[in-house]
Amino acid sequence: MKLYDFHLAPNPRRVRIFLAEKSLAMVFEQVDIFAGKNREAWFIEKNPLGGLPVLEFDDGTYLAESVAICRYFEMSYPEPPLMGVGPRDCAFVEMWNRRMELELLGPVANVLQHTHPLFKDRVTQIPEFGAMRKEHGLKRMEWLDSILAQREFVAGDRFTIADITALAAIDLGQNLAGVKMPDEARHLKRWHTAVSSRPSAKA
Amino acid sequence: MKLYDFHLAPNPRRVRIFLAEKSLAMVFEQVDIFAGKNREAWFIEKNPLGGLPVLEFDDGTYLAESVAICRYFEMSYPEPPLMGVGPRDCAFVEMWNRRMELELLGPVANVLQHTHPLFKDRVTQIPEFGAMRKEHGLKRMEWLDSILAQREFVAGDRFTIADITALAAIDLGQNLAGVKMPDEARHLKRWHTAVSSRPSAKA
Repeated sequence: MKLYDFHLAPNPRRVRIFLAEKSLAMVFEQVDIFAGKNREAWFIEKNPLGGLPVLEFDDGTYLAESVAICRYFEMSYPEPPLMGVGPRDCAFVEMWNRRMELELLGPVANVLQHTHPLFKDRVTQIPEFGAMRKEHGLKRMEWLDSILAQREFVAGDRFTIADITALAAIDLGQNLAGVKMPDEARHLKRWHTAVSSRPSAKA
Repeated sequence: MKLYDFHLAPNPRRVRIFLAEKSLAMVFEQVDIFAGKNREAWFIEKNPLGGLPVLEFDDGTYLAESVAICRYFEMSYPEPPLMGVGPRDCAFVEMWNRRMELELLGPVANVLQHTHPLFKDRVTQIPEFGAMRKEHGLKRMEWLDSILAQREFVAGDRFTIADITALAAIDLGQNLAGVKMPDEARHLKRWHTAVSSRPSAKA
């Protein structure tokens, strides 16, 4: 089993943190997105859509999509639970994880793709769309701050995959996309300091 | 238990089809998105992001996000399985469902939002972005056609949630967004005819 990874991309990082929280060992192979390695034929054979991460099983099948990969490990190694326990809890964790994807990681990634020089020659950039998504992402950070005023973690009183997705999004915004936590978002910042200090955050 | 629904929107339809495939009864309450009812205070209290569907539990808690709602019913009523059985199968179904969301329903919904008169006064439309997403969606329909040349359903030889998402996307594209199945996509059309003839498709 092997994970095709790129250490600078947010989605592979989500799976790396997930594995670290479960104390699972993994063989990683780096695929340099910046050098376009994920668009080469050998990689497209593994994932026709060209995205990372991809999990290679020992029988030569390939599983793509970060959360699908996490699901495989959650069901195979349930402890500690990162995707909830029981129908209702699992559903609420999934709701929060999707909100973090659709309302935070999505907008931040759009800003990067549509405004950053890194993507200038890789996609047709529409700066107006990037600006719209930046505004959306910042508004959602304020909203997330109001959620984290009420509890320790994104989905409740336990660290879950929703925190992992949110951390990947916030760090991408801070370090690369220029979508930074608002100064007054002190609950979000408290949460960010706490989850960043977990050993898994370095994965 | 009650589902806040809007009969013309693709995401509530996903949950309605899911429930129909499981033969589960449900009380529905219509929330007219076109009339802006989902932006009114009474609804925002239930889902601060304003999206549909939302599942109301009898204790007054609210679960949003279509797939999270499906997850709740899948875990509560496992038969017939629509999200896979066992770690590996569940992970692959999730991969395919996410591909249908991110590569098909997402682009088609973007086209609608950024080009259709229905959304003119509701969002800032960027027609150039709509055009880019239309091209993306059409390319992915060709790719999905090549997948369905190899098997009966999106995720393999069984009907799953990935077929439900794909059906919602294709119908939205055909009926409203103007992103139609390419003429030569005969496997995709064969699949569309088959899944559309299931009783659940009318849900």
